Amino acid sequence: MSSSSSPSGPLRDGLRVALLQFRVTESKEENLRTAASFLDRAAGDGGADLCVLPEIWNSPYAAAAFPEYAEGGLPPPGGGRPLKSPSAELLERKAVQHGLWIVGGSIPEVDDDGRIYNTCLVFDPEGRIVAKHRKVHLFDVDVPGGITFSESDTLSPGQAVTHFDTPWGPVGLGICYDIRFAEYALLLAEKRGCRLLVYPGAFNLTTGPAHWELLQRARAVDCQAFVATASPARAAAPPPETPGRYPHYAAWGHSTCVSPWGVVVATTDEGEGIVYADLDLAEVESVRRSIPILQQKRTDLYRLDEA
Amino acid sequence: MSSSSSPSGPLRDGLRVALLQFRVTESKEENLRTAASFLDRAAGDGGADLCVLPEIWNSPYAAAAFPEYAEGGLPPPGGGRPLKSPSAELLERKAVQHGLWIVGGSIPEVDDDGRIYNTCLVFDPEGRIVAKHRKVHLFDVDVPGGITFSESDTLSPGQAVTHFDTPWGPVGLGICYDIRFAEYALLLAEKRGCRLLVYPGAFNLTTGPAHWELLQRARAVDCQAFVATASPARAAAPPPETPGRYPHYAAWGHSTCVSPWGVVVATTDEGEGIVYADLDLAEVESVRRSIPILQQKRTDLYRLDEA
Repeated sequence: MSSSSSPSGPLRDGLRVALLQFRVTESKEENLRTAASFLDRAAGDGGADLCVLPEIWNSPYAAAAFPEYAEGGLPPPGGGRPLKSPSAELLERKAVQHGLWIVGGSIPEVDDDGRIYNTCLVFDPEGRIVAKHRKVHLFDVDVPGGITFSESDTLSPGQAVTHFDTPWGPVGLGICYDIRFAEYALLLAEKRGCRLLVYPGAFNLTTGPAHWELLQRARAVDCQAFVATASPARAAAPPPETPGRYPHYAAWGHSTCVSPWGVVVATTDEGEGIVYADLDLAEVESVRRSIPILQQKRTDLYRLDEA
Repeated sequence: MSSSSSPSGPLRDGLRVALLQFRVTESKEENLRTAASFLDRAAGDGGADLCVLPEIWNSPYAAAAFPEYAEGGLPPPGGGRPLKSPSAELLERKAVQHGLWIVGGSIPEVDDDGRIYNTCLVFDPEGRIVAKHRKVHLFDVDVPGGITFSESDTLSPGQAVTHFDTPWGPVGLGICYDIRFAEYALLLAEKRGCRLLVYPGAFNLTTGPAHWELLQRARAVDCQAFVATASPARAAAPPPETPGRYPHYAAWGHSTCVSPWGVVVATTDEGEGIVYADLDLAEVESVRRSIPILQQKRTDLYRLDEA
């Protein structure tokens, strides 16, 4: 599948992934310091090839906070420097410093027209932006007695299915709620040749225990690809006398990596930490040979296509 | 979704399903007697509205056996009587006797040209055939150290995505390996309005523990529909001195029903038995309202269509 799509020779199979699960506060400066520290640890002693940050790691996860924390000047892949966004500049600097691939979780982005997006930047080890994904499925849900959220109150949706090329082959990229959409992942595996799908995400205490791991295992087994997720650590609810400026959001945590056979190969609880996973991406081809569903699709009966 | 597609007024929501997990032998006569007995139990004291039989319940599960056990004269929906197939005739008789919906698992079917299919017939309580599904994805796999099987050695694939209408709304239908194909299930939910997907299946001891429940929960949570499966019970391997005429196939068992929230609501082990599940199909609309992914598909980025 993906082997033939590499522009520069055979793919690498061994990949050490680090999922950076850290606590996000209302202080952007503190969040940037935390991210830097986690990246230093994962790349240093951790020896990671690729780090994944959580969804919305520089801002509280609250629709009302996104405009305040949003940064502009996030260029498209291959776009210009110097970066004007402090969060992007940090990721660029750490990528170069450590010779590291960084899937930069997501941050609120504001474009020139004032529209705000939930945006993931990906940096290669030279600090080049190789992908910019704006969350395409906005988190607008209302589970009675559970979670109610409306990202579309302040956010605009992205307009593209996103992957980026690496020495390990094409890597698919979505953000959080994007993982609920099977078609999106199937496209990345079937049409883009991805062997790994990465989803920064911040599930909650209703859908987290019910669906977070299930959705990752579902995407893995249907796409026969590795799936990696990174969540913020769970922050304790603030005391009532100091509630904070934005509604408290309790993230589920449980950053996880799942194999193409559907096995959870690394995970954690809700606390801060780094989840490491040593992936052998050749397992993708092995599973796809064993149970060749990607060749057995009945495209005479149904068709999934990029629109 | 499906509420508006009912031809005859409001849908019923309460549905008592019985999954008939019985042992299949090399004697077709014995298999027919067993099926009759399980149907009598499920419809009698069990009070089932709808019974599901296992995949290939009248024949050993072996590619070489299918030609020998295959029955002809299986009419399409609404097709003529009297039925010439003893297996179909049994199901018709039991449907009428008990006023029962029967998803007739599957049997090997031979058509007028000698082609053989893995075929499921569905009967309404008047004994009418309301669906005939020929397995569309044939089980051709080769897992090193695990399972190797090639249905296409003797079987031809079906040519249709199948559902049937009931007082509970449209019910989607696939057979075993069909469940691995997310697109097939998504079509049934998105385009056909199904609130329940039924898969007779006979997973094995390699893929059963790894994927049987996962795939059902994946289909349920992606389609926000109930999923019901019925497997043969596991038969012990015969002693070496009497190996039987066909290769022994150890079925995983574990007939299961999963809710649209992805919860296993009823299941069992590998032994013989009847799994009952009392479904409230209104839960489908409740989940689809809470997390409205079926309305949030980005059909401007990807499209899944019937071909």
